[in-house]
Amino acid sequence: MRIIVVGGAGTIGTAVVELLSARHDVVVAGRQSGDVQVDISSRDSVRSMYRRIGSFDALACAAGEAHFGPFETVTEEELALGVHSKLLGQMRLVLLGRSLISEGGSFTLISGYILDDPIPEATSFAVANGGVEGFVRAAALSLERRVRINAVSPGMAQDSYEQFGPFNPGRAPVPMLEIASAFQRSIEGWRTGEIIRAW
Amino acid sequence: MRIIVVGGAGTIGTAVVELLSARHDVVVAGRQSGDVQVDISSRDSVRSMYRRIGSFDALACAAGEAHFGPFETVTEEELALGVHSKLLGQMRLVLLGRSLISEGGSFTLISGYILDDPIPEATSFAVANGGVEGFVRAAALSLERRVRINAVSPGMAQDSYEQFGPFNPGRAPVPMLEIASAFQRSIEGWRTGEIIRAW
Repeated sequence: MRIIVVGGAGTIGTAVVELLSARHDVVVAGRQSGDVQVDISSRDSVRSMYRRIGSFDALACAAGEAHFGPFETVTEEELALGVHSKLLGQMRLVLLGRSLISEGGSFTLISGYILDDPIPEATSFAVANGGVEGFVRAAALSLERRVRINAVSPGMAQDSYEQFGPFNPGRAPVPMLEIASAFQRSIEGWRTGEIIRAW
Repeated sequence: MRIIVVGGAGTIGTAVVELLSARHDVVVAGRQSGDVQVDISSRDSVRSMYRRIGSFDALACAAGEAHFGPFETVTEEELALGVHSKLLGQMRLVLLGRSLISEGGSFTLISGYILDDPIPEATSFAVANGGVEGFVRAAALSLERRVRINAVSPGMAQDSYEQFGPFNPGRAPVPMLEIASAFQRSIEGWRTGEIIRAW
């Protein structure tokens, strides 16, 4: 399969690319690095990515920003970062790519454990993740030509544990291979409209 | 208690106002009708509403738009309506009202069954509802002065059944009193960070 991994140079994306590359033709899309540059918060940039890549069989997204910081002083703009980047950016990948993806192809978006087990600093992530999961469940009902869509909800990634572990007391790190494997199950499997948890 | 009901002239808001008015001092806020005018998609409008109302003990929201229409032809802008109105609008009510609400007060937002049991036409609602539920769970961890926050997730409202029933095969209508009572449980009860289902 020809698979686009958006955010393929990030913490989780790197693991996804490593796992999938052994079996597939992987195109890494990233903001600054990778084979093709893309900023998912920009419609023109997403359109241009699809134009440059041409045909593809699957897209996995491990990209999307949200705000991390104390809730007491958070502003509307800060909270909305997750909505504009991680939520609307990922929806944009699907809306602009749905007519281009191969018949029977799949989109795999990224949500996260913060929706189910929030911490105060990551309210912006909880909002974005909730929206992503709602989108995936609903969009799966309507995608044509047997195109599937799922979201992977990673736990605390092992490679982020040093940075974010202290904010999440009692949350054990999840091996990168376990998270990458959840993307593989979505891409090579049969499910659609599902939230695939890696935690 | 002095309770603001945003969207108090709408289908669900009317039922909420009717139930609460017997026991509380209710201020109805609406886009065109009610005691005070407010458009939750505008920050200035929300600020002005709070200025006009002054002190309050609880806010219940039954307002917020989202797009309803076929997924196959839906645009980014249409899908984003739910995000900008129902999701960010309700978050705005909390962010701008959190320093003004009485100690021990409560915010009750509105989500909906479409998140859990989506239909193709209502993808924009599923996205907004997912975001609202993520926000409520996370914000509850951090609100100060014992302020609580919940979301009511109404099922198919009896008074909307004639209009929306045909799009939801097999979904039974929920009596308006059952939906209004969920708001009452949030406001007069003790729970916080919860999704209170009325279906």
